[in-house]
Amino acid sequence: MSVPLITLTTDFGEDSPYVAAMKGVILTVNSEARLIDLTHQIPPQNLWHAAFFLKHSLPHFPPGTLHVIVVDPGVGTEREMLYVEARGQCLLVPDNGCWTLFANQQETTMVRVLAESRYWRSPVSATFQGRDILAPVAGWLSRGLAPESIGPTTAEWVRLRVPEPEVRGDGIHGEVVFVDHFGNLITNIPGEKLAALKGRNIRVLVGSSEVDVFARTYGETTPGTLLALISSSGMLEIALNQGNAADRLGAAFGTPVGISLRLLLPADGNKP
Amino acid sequence: MSVPLITLTTDFGEDSPYVAAMKGVILTVNSEARLIDLTHQIPPQNLWHAAFFLKHSLPHFPPGTLHVIVVDPGVGTEREMLYVEARGQCLLVPDNGCWTLFANQQETTMVRVLAESRYWRSPVSATFQGRDILAPVAGWLSRGLAPESIGPTTAEWVRLRVPEPEVRGDGIHGEVVFVDHFGNLITNIPGEKLAALKGRNIRVLVGSSEVDVFARTYGETTPGTLLALISSSGMLEIALNQGNAADRLGAAFGTPVGISLRLLLPADGNKP
Amino acid sequence: MSVPLITLTTDFGEDSPYVAAMKGVILTVNSEARLIDLTHQIPPQNLWHAAFFLKHSLPHFPPGTLHVIVVDPGVGTEREMLYVEARGQCLLVPDNGCWTLFANQQETTMVRVLAESRYWRSPVSATFQGRDILAPVAGWLSRGLAPESIGPTTAEWVRLRVPEPEVRGDGIHGEVVFVDHFGNLITNIPGEKLAALKGRNIRVLVGSSEVDVFARTYGETTPGTLLALISSSGMLEIALNQGNAADRLGAAFGTPVGISLRLLLPADGNKP
Repeated sequence: MSVPLITLTTDFGEDSPYVAAMKGVILTVNSEARLIDLTHQIPPQNLWHAAFFLKHSLPHFPPGTLHVIVVDPGVGTEREMLYVEARGQCLLVPDNGCWTLFANQQETTMVRVLAESRYWRSPVSATFQGRDILAPVAGWLSRGLAPESIGPTTAEWVRLRVPEPEVRGDGIHGEVVFVDHFGNLITNIPGEKLAALKGRNIRVLVGSSEVDVFARTYGETTPGTLLALISSSGMLEIALNQGNAADRLGAAFGTPVGISLRLLLPADGNKP
Repeated sequence: MSVPLITLTTDFGEDSPYVAAMKGVILTVNSEARLIDLTHQIPPQNLWHAAFFLKHSLPHFPPGTLHVIVVDPGVGTEREMLYVEARGQCLLVPDNGCWTLFANQQETTMVRVLAESRYWRSPVSATFQGRDILAPVAGWLSRGLAPESIGPTTAEWVRLRVPEPEVRGDGIHGEVVFVDHFGNLITNIPGEKLAALKGRNIRVLVGSSEVDVFARTYGETTPGTLLALISSSGMLEIALNQGNAADRLGAAFGTPVGISLRLLLPADGNKP
Repeated sequence: MSVPLITLTTDFGEDSPYVAAMKGVILTVNSEARLIDLTHQIPPQNLWHAAFFLKHSLPHFPPGTLHVIVVDPGVGTEREMLYVEARGQCLLVPDNGCWTLFANQQETTMVRVLAESRYWRSPVSATFQGRDILAPVAGWLSRGLAPESIGPTTAEWVRLRVPEPEVRGDGIHGEVVFVDHFGNLITNIPGEKLAALKGRNIRVLVGSSEVDVFARTYGETTPGTLLALISSSGMLEIALNQGNAADRLGAAFGTPVGISLRLLLPADGNKP
């Protein structure tokens, strides 16, 4: 690898010295490493937020990029630290499943358990294995250390349960799986599922609130409109034009989102 | 350009995958690009905040630096994406005027409309043109692609209205145009305008609150003093020594700031 | 130095143009400089927070790394700007003592006063010496300028008073010296002091609240447990498993933390 790119994704925030310590450890092992911050603002220990974040950012990186991920509700328990190769990307991550949504289980994935402590800091703290294990191993890998040197492959790892939308009765029943920085609600309903309903008169409900309109993009509506659209990640998204849909609707991760055919009274004179 | 510097300025925050996706796209086109985060904390869709931010940061960069800016209240409307050369800097930015305060209209500015979709990701999402248009074009330009390849020049672009202070009656009437991280209030009243009043007995009002003292710097006053000074950007600034002036005064973007000669009663025995 | 690493630590936040301006100034002096953000989220003018942050991050960097630090409650007063070599690291920092906790007074430290204004921007603003003095000097040093060129050595500098824990009566009396991003409370009681009490039946009080258990790591307890442990920095830490201890206990910087032997009634049948 001519350009040793290493990205960092954590829930450490930026007011604590944890991210800085990891950067120092990586650069001490390989001062040529090029560090790219992805985020340090994953909500503390929120694996689902991390999973969505990774799914929609990692695939854009050049093949062979090394991604260090530390969101670790199990810190200090017996969970392993993993090295993963999936979809052309290389990951170092605690074994908690936050990467499995990205990895897309249809594709071949190679997973190793970090076992060779000669590449770790010593002693390893009970509470900061990101600094003491993942950071130095990232440094060594970026220097060209062969992955087979850091530990054996495994076929066992934690998978994050993916909440799937259900098609039942006259509609699709999904949920909000990510609230972005603008308060847009990304759901687990893929855009393709909506294609089947194209041209039909549908209604979209978030909790018990009905969305005003289905649009191609924010800008097609007037400010203040609550709209449904296909997100940049290809999923059904609910947004408030020039506003915050999550605040307006009181919606969060897990809020139900339903799509149904609109029942029209004959008096309307429209065919449904 | 021997060192392909690319800066990033957005209102995306850091909890969403949008910034990370853009970094990945740029690096996929040019893995040698050197990415510099300027900020991802522009308040959502706040063009004025972005305008002030750009005006006071971009001029400090080496000539030829490429700045990618995504603050885009018009996402998904028909607004164009622009490539701008101004004051030695190169910008990629939606056509919403947030860069015109920086560009300083007296100087020659070259503007192109991004039109050559061969340099874009395909398909272009309706809601994330930062990732699908600006990021790959930035990658190509940093690899040496000639700007004339990305689209034709234009003489039409949106300009942000600059609120100018007024000199009328016995004083200067301006407003707060930026509240910084410390709660300091930066106004649109240039320091030179104050020079004319030098040695006169003036009062400075923020809304209806009078500032305690005019000083050269925070440290000349005691903690808790509300002071007026010339900011590091050369404008009248209101600050609270070791405190937050915006919170104390309830002031924000647009709050009126007035300077007037102090009317003194003859009993004071001072000449005004 | 083959790789001119320059880190940045400030209390500037990321919504203001100050960090970006400093990056531009450094890169204008040395476009090859590699900038590493440590944090811009030191709470405004909080020297103690900065001191703890620096102590637990700087030692991890490769020898010779240049660290630019701007947390500066004395901005615009007569305090000097310093260049410091300590523990193999090089620092540029206002003379306010925030670095002395890191430097560890037992070791030899070399300190210079920045005096050679030919390496500064001109004119120097009264309120932004980070941009006008520290940033350009960092650029020059990273290009190989000898430290003796920037100003004379000094033996006078501000030291931050370190609150030491007291051993008195039957216990140890310390305090919270850092609250991290997760709400964990780091104290000034070193882990070694606790070793003397090993096997004894102790109680840990934060303010007037008693901690549930002493553990090696978060994961040894059930969610919701308030635990004492040795932090990754080697100090007594109070944490709430999968929660925020600072919020739960209403604790902050300076909250007293006491360790005492538990007095047991004979009826307990246990030896203390």
